Parts: sequence; C-alpha cells; structure tokens
Amino acid sequence: MESIKVVSPSSVANVSCGFDILGICLDHTGDEMLIKKSKIPGLRILKINGADISTKIEKNVAGIAAKSYLKKYPSRFGFEIEIIKKVSVGSGLGSSASSAVAAVYGINYLLERNIKKIDLINHAVVGEAYASGQAHADNIAPTMFGGFTLVRDLSSLDILKLPYPNDIYITIIHPEIEIKTSMVREITNKKISMNKVIKQTANLGGLISGLYSNNYELISRCLVDEIVEEYRAELIPDYYLLKESAIKNGALGCGISGSGPSIFSMSKGKETALKVKIGFEEIFSNNKIKFKTFISKINNEGVKVIER
Amino acid sequence: MESIKVVSPSSVANVSCGFDILGICLDHTGDEMLIKKSKIPGLRILKINGADISTKIEKNVAGIAAKSYLKKYPSRFGFEIEIIKKVSVGSGLGSSASSAVAAVYGINYLLERNIKKIDLINHAVVGEAYASGQAHADNIAPTMFGGFTLVRDLSSLDILKLPYPNDIYITIIHPEIEIKTSMVREITNKKISMNKVIKQTANLGGLISGLYSNNYELISRCLVDEIVEEYRAELIPDYYLLKESAIKNGALGCGISGSGPSIFSMSKGKETALKVKIGFEEIFSNNKIKFKTFISKINNEGVKVIER
Repeated sequence: MESIKVVSPSSVANVSCGFDILGICLDHTGDEMLIKKSKIPGLRILKINGADISTKIEKNVAGIAAKSYLKKYPSRFGFEIEIIKKVSVGSGLGSSASSAVAAVYGINYLLERNIKKIDLINHAVVGEAYASGQAHADNIAPTMFGGFTLVRDLSSLDILKLPYPNDIYITIIHPEIEIKTSMVREITNKKISMNKVIKQTANLGGLISGLYSNNYELISRCLVDEIVEEYRAELIPDYYLLKESAIKNGALGCGISGSGPSIFSMSKGKETALKVKIGFEEIFSNNKIKFKTFISKINNEGVKVIER
Repeated sequence: MESIKVVSPSSVANVSCGFDILGICLDHTGDEMLIKKSKIPGLRILKINGADISTKIEKNVAGIAAKSYLKKYPSRFGFEIEIIKKVSVGSGLGSSASSAVAAVYGINYLLERNIKKIDLINHAVVGEAYASGQAHADNIAPTMFGGFTLVRDLSSLDILKLPYPNDIYITIIHPEIEIKTSMVREITNKKISMNKVIKQTANLGGLISGLYSNNYELISRCLVDEIVEEYRAELIPDYYLLKESAIKNGALGCGISGSGPSIFSMSKGKETALKVKIGFEEIFSNNKIKFKTFISKINNEGVKVIER
C-alpha cells in the first residue's frame, strides 16, 4: 500500500447527562484524509481544503496526533497528508477529534500494523488536547469506534461501546458563531451541589438502562443535563427556544453538542428528526446568524478506509 | 383474610457510585410483621420483638407508613400489628425501610386491594422520612421490588429494576456502633468538584452497563465511590482495612452500606464471599467493638407474604 484515503466521522459529545463521558458517532459528515508514504522521512501536510488552519505539523491537530503515534511506533517512511476538512472547526461536532483520529488511524492502516483501535486512542487524544486544551476522549471515542460510547476511564483506556435502539436519528443545528474557549473551560472549575449530582447520576443510570433495553420513553426522560447546560445555554442564541421546539416536535431530548454552539436533538424515527430540523430552521431564520442543519443516523463503524 | 404475616427484607443502599439512587435487596434477614384486621377502627402496634422502639403509631416507622397509606386508601377495619424486628435499627441495612414496606404492603395485601407496589412506595417513604429525616427510596425500592434497583426519580415514581449476574453474593459486616445522624446529613450539603462528578457518572454508567452485560470485571472496576466514601469512612473503625481485605480476598468491590456503619462487599460466587467474611472477622476481632457478619444472595422478590 502506497497511499490511503480515510473518512473520519463527526460526533456529538457531552450527551446530556453524560458530560465528558458520553459520545455519539454521526453518519452525516466526516473529515477526509489522503495519506501517502514517502521515501523522505518526516510528516508533511501538503494541503488543507475546507478550513483555514495551519499546515505546520506542530500547529495542526492531525499533525500533532500523527507525530505522537510515530514517536511511539517509529517508521522508516515519511508521510504526506492532504486534508479535506468537512467537519466545521469550532462547531462542537468533534472537528479536531475527526482530524486526529483520521491521521492516527490512517497512518497505522497504511503501515499495515496490527495495532488495535484502543491503542491508537491516546495519540489521537494528544491532538485533541492541543485543540481543546484538555485531554478528553468523548469525541475521539465515537469517531474511532463508531456508535454510542462511554469513556469510563481514559487513563486506563476503559472505553465502552453501548448498544442503542436502531431507530434513533440525530438532528443538528450549527449556528455559525464562535464560542470563547475560556467560557467553556470555566465549567470544569465549577462545584456542583449534591442534589444535582444525585439527579445527574440517576439520569445517566436510567439512560444506560434505556439504551440496553430499547426503552425510548426511559431514554427520553433521562436526556437531561442538570449541571452544565445552564452555564452553556446562555452562549448560544435561542437555545431554550430551539430545545422547546424540538421537544414539542416529538424529540426524545435535546442538548448542547460538545461545548457548542451546535445543538443536537435525538428522535425516534427519521420523520420526527426531520420535523425537529424544520422547527430549528423556522426559529433560527428569525435572527441574522448563519446556520446549518442536518439529520443523521448513528454511525456504528467510526473511522474507515474509503480508498487505497 | 383476617390476618397476614409478611417478611420484608433488609437492603444495601448507596451502592458505591450510586449514592442515593442504587439499592440491593438482601436475602438474609427481614423484618416480620403480623397484621390482623380488627373491628375496632384505628391502628395499634401491640408488640415489638427484637428492638427497643416505640409502639406509638406517630413515633413508629411502620405506624407512620401505615397511617399514610390508610389516609389515601381508607378502610372500615382497624389493624393490630406485631413486629418482629430482625433488621438491626441503625445498622445501615435498611431497617426502617423494612418496617415501612412491611406495614404498607401487608395492610394492602390483607385488604385484597388491587394497588400496585409502585403506588405503595410513597407511603413507605413517609415512614422512612420520619426515621432518616429525608424522603428517599433507595432502601424502600429494593425492599419493595427485590433485586437491584435504581431510583431514577422519586417524585414521578420512576424506579427501575436492573438485571444482574446470577452469581453475585454480598458479604456484610455490621459493627455495632452508632453513627450520628447529624454527621450523615452533612453530606447532602457538600459541593462536589466537576472532576469527581465526571468520575462518578463514568463509574455509574459502567456499572449499569456491566450489570446488563454480565461483565464482572467491568462491575468491579466501577464499584467505586468518588464523592461520599471519604466523608463517611472516618466514622467507621477500620473501614479502609476492611475494604482492602475484601479486595485482596477477591471481592468485586466494597463500600459503606447506606449511611453505615455496615459495610458491604460484592463478590462473584459464594466461596469468595465467604473468604471476604472471614477476612472481615479476622480484622474486626482485633478491636473491642461487637460486630455481626453474614453473606447473602440478592433477593429478587422483595417483600412477601409468608402466612395468611
């Protein structure tokens, strides 16, 4: 194999009661990455389409992740990378995780090495940490493994793939605004009342139970965030209006995707997901902020090779 | 039916990462209650064996719970109650829940009414609230329904019965000391760091997943309490020694039962549970505090009628 092209999906992290632990892999968009072996050692990012980001290895999420991987697993080859960014940077849809996973998975595949996805996680996380300032894997995990993932413990690479009902559709609205990282990071310094911790754990327990038992009503009752939403909602215009509209249109739940500004809604069936999407569009066309909407199934496969 | 005798099991609440929400019904001991219809209206507690507690209706958990039930569902009969307390008062093994559930379930059964267990919960909770000062159901739920229960939301009576692997055994040590309620209540005023909340939710999610998938290793990794143990451990002599010994003897996990002083340990298989019990006894015979130990399967049935 001389070259490879991979697609690495977008994702929803911080799924309601699963702050920093639950993620969902989306089937709708993913970064594409073309990786070529080269006889000249070293990593080079030749081209980036679709986003105005640095091609310098030390300033690029994919470059940093790839470098971490190659430090652990050296190769006599060099690599030339072309990136087609399809997941919008700063959207809250796992853009940096997508690129980080693509680079690490792609190079590993190209080298035909027998290293498991779980052992690639840490290197992708290094890239993600550069972008977000924190080593977390709640976007990395769904993008790598696909499906609905729970990061039980990152340090011991204890990551679970949860089952989920087949008929779940995700509706996304991405308001094209920038959310200040400093506002986002403040959250991690908050202290939470015991009462809220109890509610959050109760909802998380119920959600996991609902996923295992295909109980849509239970899932819906548990798609609640008691601890982060109140701080982040104010950064997103019309957040509560959008959420109310999703629920009114029959969604199982609605919340902020990652650190925002994107908002996700979960529905049973495509028809409801489409209704939610139209509801989102009606509300947001009243203000002057540009936005995108789409619906997506859960992608159960994660990152994959599309050309070799 | 003129009289009935019910047995109402003891339970473990605050199961590790499931503070205030997770409970386990034990097969080992339960309060017994003999309830007789009487033509003289009103409730009377004639006799209590096994504990030095008030027979006054307004000062007795069973009396208060029964009164709450009869206020909602009046009867032309009166009731005479005899209680055989087998679950030690103040042990952390759901003693008050046991009595409250016995009274409400027993009277309802005796009256041959078609009221579901879930609709009896609130009345048992009224009794429990008198004893513990808080309306919570993490002992009431397992005692009523049996098994491994999750109180998702008490106000809407959203209580789940979780599956669990068949070969789980619980080892209990009950050090006969008194834990001051004021110390226990302080916990609910604590504020928890986001980092600990994330760990607690991650462990809870993993535990529920492990219960559904019969994954003992996962259950074991998740039987961790990040937020309450550190405050309560100091109230129980040798707590960390006992816990260390349980783990060394092969237990899946170990923690404080309810508000203590009892300590529970969960094991795969009876043999390991017995080893844990012997380890507990060796440690505790070194100090002068009286104690009891026992092992128990999970009781999947909950409160039941044993004579009519």
